[in-house]
Amino acid sequence: MIGASASARDIAAAVRTKRVSAVEAVRAALHRIQANDAAVNGFTTVTADRALARAADIDRVIASGGDPGPLAGAPFAVKNLFDVKGLPTLAGSKINRDRTPATRDAALVERLEAAGAVLVGALNMDEYAYGFTTENSHYGPCRNPHDTTRLAGGSSGGSAVAVAAGLVPLTLGSDTNGSIRVPSSLCGIFGLKPTYGRLTRTGSYLFASSFDHLGPFARSVGDIAAAYDTMQGPDPEDPACSTPAADPVLPKLAEGAGGLRVAVADGWFRKGLSDEGQAAMAAVAGALGATRSVTIPEAQRARAAAFLITMAEGANLHLPDLKTRATDFDPMTRDRFLAGALVPAHWVLQAQRLRRWYRARVLELFQTVDVILAPATPVVAPPIGTEFFELDGERLPVRANMGLYTQPLSFIGLPILAVPVHRPGSLPIGVQVIAAPWREDLVLRVGAALEAAGVVSAPVAKAFADA
Amino acid sequence: MIGASASARDIAAAVRTKRVSAVEAVRAALHRIQANDAAVNGFTTVTADRALARAADIDRVIASGGDPGPLAGAPFAVKNLFDVKGLPTLAGSKINRDRTPATRDAALVERLEAAGAVLVGALNMDEYAYGFTTENSHYGPCRNPHDTTRLAGGSSGGSAVAVAAGLVPLTLGSDTNGSIRVPSSLCGIFGLKPTYGRLTRTGSYLFASSFDHLGPFARSVGDIAAAYDTMQGPDPEDPACSTPAADPVLPKLAEGAGGLRVAVADGWFRKGLSDEGQAAMAAVAGALGATRSVTIPEAQRARAAAFLITMAEGANLHLPDLKTRATDFDPMTRDRFLAGALVPAHWVLQAQRLRRWYRARVLELFQTVDVILAPATPVVAPPIGTEFFELDGERLPVRANMGLYTQPLSFIGLPILAVPVHRPGSLPIGVQVIAAPWREDLVLRVGAALEAAGVVSAPVAKAFADA
Repeated sequence: MIGASASARDIAAAVRTKRVSAVEAVRAALHRIQANDAAVNGFTTVTADRALARAADIDRVIASGGDPGPLAGAPFAVKNLFDVKGLPTLAGSKINRDRTPATRDAALVERLEAAGAVLVGALNMDEYAYGFTTENSHYGPCRNPHDTTRLAGGSSGGSAVAVAAGLVPLTLGSDTNGSIRVPSSLCGIFGLKPTYGRLTRTGSYLFASSFDHLGPFARSVGDIAAAYDTMQGPDPEDPACSTPAADPVLPKLAEGAGGLRVAVADGWFRKGLSDEGQAAMAAVAGALGATRSVTIPEAQRARAAAFLITMAEGANLHLPDLKTRATDFDPMTRDRFLAGALVPAHWVLQAQRLRRWYRARVLELFQTVDVILAPATPVVAPPIGTEFFELDGERLPVRANMGLYTQPLSFIGLPILAVPVHRPGSLPIGVQVIAAPWREDLVLRVGAALEAAGVVSAPVAKAFADA
Repeated sequence: MIGASASARDIAAAVRTKRVSAVEAVRAALHRIQANDAAVNGFTTVTADRALARAADIDRVIASGGDPGPLAGAPFAVKNLFDVKGLPTLAGSKINRDRTPATRDAALVERLEAAGAVLVGALNMDEYAYGFTTENSHYGPCRNPHDTTRLAGGSSGGSAVAVAAGLVPLTLGSDTNGSIRVPSSLCGIFGLKPTYGRLTRTGSYLFASSFDHLGPFARSVGDIAAAYDTMQGPDPEDPACSTPAADPVLPKLAEGAGGLRVAVADGWFRKGLSDEGQAAMAAVAGALGATRSVTIPEAQRARAAAFLITMAEGANLHLPDLKTRATDFDPMTRDRFLAGALVPAHWVLQAQRLRRWYRARVLELFQTVDVILAPATPVVAPPIGTEFFELDGERLPVRANMGLYTQPLSFIGLPILAVPVHRPGSLPIGVQVIAAPWREDLVLRVGAALEAAGVVSAPVAKAFADA
């Protein structure tokens, strides 16, 4: 049978060689969701009928000697901002329940299913992706599988808890300012935020269009790479998708990290970092022999600019609803959207000017380094409902500051793999592995090398692991 | 001797064949400026010493058998937002008098001078290019050479009057929402607004960066083409300059307009058009055999969006001065800049969204037509100081509405030649000849064909013509 810790590739291998049927694999996932999701609150919809029908199709293909695809029978789920045919695309909101149901799956769902993966449901998130904690007032907070009194991180909280609790091996989320990397860090799993423009956004509900990235979560780098390879490649339907032709990464993972020039980000990326974060950084940097450090200039200003542009783009998108249905918004997001509607244009223009300058400076760094390391979050998961924490003696709001280290990097669309460090007696915490635009191959090779060396790993949380 | 109506190419031919010296040619221009500029108020600075020294250099090159360039000895002048080494770049303002003098000429000045042309001065304009009338409170209004009680148009008013009064054969200006085409129309000369990104803006004082174009004014299409050919080509120093390699147009002018599919813009571009404008359109369309009409969709919304983005970008640029020196601004521009500082970002984002949609729709039109005709201004030059005019029975402010027909086209960066129609007993008025991006060759071929047919022409204004 398929255990909680089975990877998507394990499951597909078993299905393709008829050791288990796709229907059995999907039933196992549905069973775990039914038994365990209540504890973590990851799913907002389970698409059981659709999944079982799809699995039966795959089994028929196999029975007739056809090729069901490299991810045959692997269950996956998606943040509920991805279109799923027949469902309204909630994007974490109450308002979107009234939207017309999607008439087509999101492009990435189509691509994964074309490779044999099976969608089993849609996942909880911060309303309209505007948050780092997934304390959703409409659907309840996601709970961290490693300690269900603690935050899962956000905004792709459901995507992280479903993987960390072993409900499914693979999920998709979105990352605007850190929404893949923050929950990956708190839940102790892998999460890939690809280069801006790399994965098509057709059929997803955007938040801040100039920052929105889609990407996968998994418990192994191999699964991340397999899903990424399945999803990459151009899409003429998405004007923001500027990716070159697909260039599979999975075959390159074995190349390892030898010979790569790895540096550690200093300055802003050391400030306020907890002991757990420092230990994780030291472990990853040590394993890669990274002794150099580099300074990403004006990271704090970059973050301020990212906040401004996000607010304005988000408010622009939601303005009609803010005018007519303000009280139907989640109180966790409403005031920020309203404030965003008041931001003057010249602030945003100045922020965009900084962005061009900053992007050019950061790209210069990649002339002398291949990969940069930075913490993914300042701290391990705080208890749900925590309002403030202290970083370097300064009292700061938790919800805004979980993205302290992620925002300055998504601001310019760099590809980043969040890798999880688990240490005995401590909650997990992640490290960002960062490369130049379009160099997903480098961050995934580094991730695979760290995984092979046992420095990073993403076990199913103890409470949810098979006996 | 060199007469007021001599073209830049006439002068260069005379200088290159030693019929006149470059010094004589430049002296003739300086003499006309001294005698006649007071009547039109075109020049804010005359660079006589520099010009004479430069002319003497050219004569030495000729004397020693060298090639002084295709525009040898041709005098030209530039809107005072172009950097001129040693002068503060006024951009029509009082505030900029306190700026550090430019240490280098603007790139287009360098390119023209490398071809042998000789800069003789800097020209009046609306403050910071924010206007359609050049009623500059610091430097006085430009006066229309065809009737000096009337407006020259703006913001490149000085660039138009210097050419129409025969002071120089060639000038440069800038066009953000119509600032080349409007004064070309009112002063009855040719003006080219090239494709956005075509001519380098290095060393010019911008207004609204995403709309700013630089381009030439002249009394013949041949001079426009010769100047354009001299100035075109990439410039790595200007991030907005996205032009392909230079592709000379002058040799193509003889190809004429035969075989080109020409259509007349209807809808918005017929609304409010004066009898003079209708007669000019009829003459040009008739000469080209244009019987088709096309509808540019949502031109009015495009114009509204252009206003918003312009305000916001302009305010962003001038905000530090607005905060500290508001009273030093021209009252003609101050309130609009201040209002621009209050425009919410979501309005501008919505305007940019419209812009993408609109651009795609307009580009579709060019699948079935090569050239579109539209009026350049609704009316001939009104008296200086006119606050209101009546268009289709509606009372409208003159200053904002002279760009009625130009704004929706510069909004998406199309190349446009304004061609002048002079009819007996009437002031001149212009027609816009519009093509798809990067097709300056088409608008210049059409302009040359109309000029050869005698339908359009740009004589020196009577009061300034040689006896």
